[in-house]
Amino acid sequence: MTTETKQTIVIIGAEAAGMSAAAKARRTDRHADILVFEQSHVVSFGACGLPYYVGDNFDDTSYMAERSVEQFRESGIDLRIGHQVLSVDANSQSLKVKDLASGEVFEQGYDRLMIASGASVIRPPIAGLDDESVFFLKTMDDGINLKQRVQDETVQETVVIGAGYIGLEVVEALVHQGKKVRLIELSERVLSESFDSEMSELVQQELIDNQVALHLNERVESIESQEGSRWVVTNLGRYPADLVVVATGVKPNTEFLASTGIERLGNGAIVIDQQGRTSLSNVYAAGDCATVWHRLRQQAVYIPLATTANKIGRLLGENLCGGAKVFSGTLGSAGVKVLGVEAGRTGISEREAAQLGWQVKSVVINDKNTTNYVAGQQAIRVKLIYDAESKRILGGQIAGGAGSVLRVDTIAAAIQGGLTTEDLGMMDLVYAPPFARTWDALNVAGNVAK
Amino acid sequence: MTTETKQTIVIIGAEAAGMSAAAKARRTDRHADILVFEQSHVVSFGACGLPYYVGDNFDDTSYMAERSVEQFRESGIDLRIGHQVLSVDANSQSLKVKDLASGEVFEQGYDRLMIASGASVIRPPIAGLDDESVFFLKTMDDGINLKQRVQDETVQETVVIGAGYIGLEVVEALVHQGKKVRLIELSERVLSESFDSEMSELVQQELIDNQVALHLNERVESIESQEGSRWVVTNLGRYPADLVVVATGVKPNTEFLASTGIERLGNGAIVIDQQGRTSLSNVYAAGDCATVWHRLRQQAVYIPLATTANKIGRLLGENLCGGAKVFSGTLGSAGVKVLGVEAGRTGISEREAAQLGWQVKSVVINDKNTTNYVAGQQAIRVKLIYDAESKRILGGQIAGGAGSVLRVDTIAAAIQGGLTTEDLGMMDLVYAPPFARTWDALNVAGNVAK
Repeated sequence: MTTETKQTIVIIGAEAAGMSAAAKARRTDRHADILVFEQSHVVSFGACGLPYYVGDNFDDTSYMAERSVEQFRESGIDLRIGHQVLSVDANSQSLKVKDLASGEVFEQGYDRLMIASGASVIRPPIAGLDDESVFFLKTMDDGINLKQRVQDETVQETVVIGAGYIGLEVVEALVHQGKKVRLIELSERVLSESFDSEMSELVQQELIDNQVALHLNERVESIESQEGSRWVVTNLGRYPADLVVVATGVKPNTEFLASTGIERLGNGAIVIDQQGRTSLSNVYAAGDCATVWHRLRQQAVYIPLATTANKIGRLLGENLCGGAKVFSGTLGSAGVKVLGVEAGRTGISEREAAQLGWQVKSVVINDKNTTNYVAGQQAIRVKLIYDAESKRILGGQIAGGAGSVLRVDTIAAAIQGGLTTEDLGMMDLVYAPPFARTWDALNVAGNVAK
Repeated sequence: MTTETKQTIVIIGAEAAGMSAAAKARRTDRHADILVFEQSHVVSFGACGLPYYVGDNFDDTSYMAERSVEQFRESGIDLRIGHQVLSVDANSQSLKVKDLASGEVFEQGYDRLMIASGASVIRPPIAGLDDESVFFLKTMDDGINLKQRVQDETVQETVVIGAGYIGLEVVEALVHQGKKVRLIELSERVLSESFDSEMSELVQQELIDNQVALHLNERVESIESQEGSRWVVTNLGRYPADLVVVATGVKPNTEFLASTGIERLGNGAIVIDQQGRTSLSNVYAAGDCATVWHRLRQQAVYIPLATTANKIGRLLGENLCGGAKVFSGTLGSAGVKVLGVEAGRTGISEREAAQLGWQVKSVVINDKNTTNYVAGQQAIRVKLIYDAESKRILGGQIAGGAGSVLRVDTIAAAIQGGLTTEDLGMMDLVYAPPFARTWDALNVAGNVAK
């Protein structure tokens, strides 16, 4: 370490991206002042745990936080919870911060700033969302409130609005809790944002097989309450609901930056480059408030996931200290378990390719996850999306039994390595009867691709 | 199809490699005569199923055969079971074949020949191997005989000799059958041929935890029988044994080729190139009787596995018909489940690198397979072997709970794609609580590698 002037690093937001950056910055520069302002009283919180908490997989909420406020403070990070950043002045390199407990507002200068203010749930245009039986699932408090209500045995009829990752995980949690579950989705299928229809079908079948009332192509218009009873009203019907969970996606928390002129996408996501830099000098961003660099699309996209938040967060920990680390890019790899079915995806979907105007081909195969004589053999479906000419793999989706999601990682590695369908077809994958067939489903998909 | 002279393709052996080739050749050249000579009466048989059959996972032996004699014949393959090839004359391009039923010996010419004669169990230098309580496990009959004996309730004390893949799978089968099991291994650890010691340790602990008596560094000298009782005698002790299974590896069935001068390794394996060609013109080989091309070592090695037998077999189906397909190479990917632990490997082990004189580094990390709050979270251990300078990944081994083996496939893809530890560290792998942590164990291993 040189004896140069001590740097002041300020981070807005103490979830995955912010705290990954803070921890890494602390290890990278032992002398810098590192301040983190967090509006809530919860830090390093992973919302991914909420459906599992609600589904009674565990009761101790501390499981959802990687580390505590005390642990961060002990490591030498000046972590201020209950502090809201009101505005940023990029010219003077300073923030206006409000201590929510005292009401005091003060200025805080920075040499380098990281915005990791996360995202908030989207409140869709549905009348009656303020009803006490309507829940969202994003914050720790959301989880605690919902779980309390779920444990009320008079709550029988439940409705989940939105069939993305969170919506489906909530459905699973409610089924586990013995509730009657109705799932209402505006589009024509579940997981329509990230998966192609062949995978949605398998998830939908699993829902139906588990007595979930599945409503597709249906728009919720209002939540009605009368004499202690409630109904969800759609363009097609009116359904009793003791409890409603709204899971219609998230939007970046970047309103407080509007006056800075920082470059944002249409939905408000801060645009960052591969080094995590925003359009403002000395200002970085990461996590659910920002874009991520897409490895295949070679552009900034909005795919808010914990994995990339952690990765870019850690990388920013170095760049906030003067580093110039470059993020190699996301593939949008993601997965979900819904009752007995797994679904995972990576790279470009066929739908996405069509939107981008890419010339791709695709193949879908139905296979099994183990050798025939192994107890509990399950069906899996593999889809590959690949360049029509070079046969380079651009995307993959797998849904079905055990091992569906982990196989997606192999496709992610194949994409990163620039491999073709032919490479995958002959790839030396592990075989033993409990894990795969001699030609793994991935081999088969690669070989069937023409 | 041209009207050129009809070709005669002869294949010796009707297991995985031979029948994959026959089936593919049939689809490739609809006019050729395709003859397959098989000594036994079982075709397309996968010995990998035997431990599962013995362990009572299933009872129908037909599960272990991909297709039946009739199915092959119906597809237009002249499949002759009970036919032993006595010798090959590469100059006249003809075989001497014995019909084992009639005793008749006849000549058979070929335009192209494929040797897929498989391997036989090694009979180690142990006195008393002919005792009726000593079993090997390679053929369908071996399996039927062993299973019958295992079902005898007076059989309580069992001894398995050899702690490779098959030995360990037999141990699992015997434990499942409620037997007392003793495992005796000559070397200092289990799976010593293919795994490094950090992985062997986990498997050994699992054996001990399941009351398997584990004897390492111990040499079996004889099997003694006296008044209906039997003992396995080693350099260190004498152990009661109602049943003994010998699983000390296999050797290629290539003795009948000695006079041809065909190039073979020291153990008798026929050396083939990347197109499956032997040193004799118009003679090809694949499967357990032959070498395989190693992608990283860039040389022919003996790694007898069903996966490569199938892959090279299918490829030879084209080359026997005049094709020139090139096998991209094995990584020696393999895996095994032993009671509650999985172990998988791909690429070069650290031990192998040392033998080859390669400058490698390695890293071993201990992690978990899922997020903390998911029920049934298990430990997994990941080892990476990588080039000391370029950090290119050369090998990987994973042992532990669920998902250990499938993660090895991702390393295989990373090796094939030429990726580095840094690439793996930041690779966009799927995260959801039931499948991984936000930084998958593979990411962690990649990041810890320096």
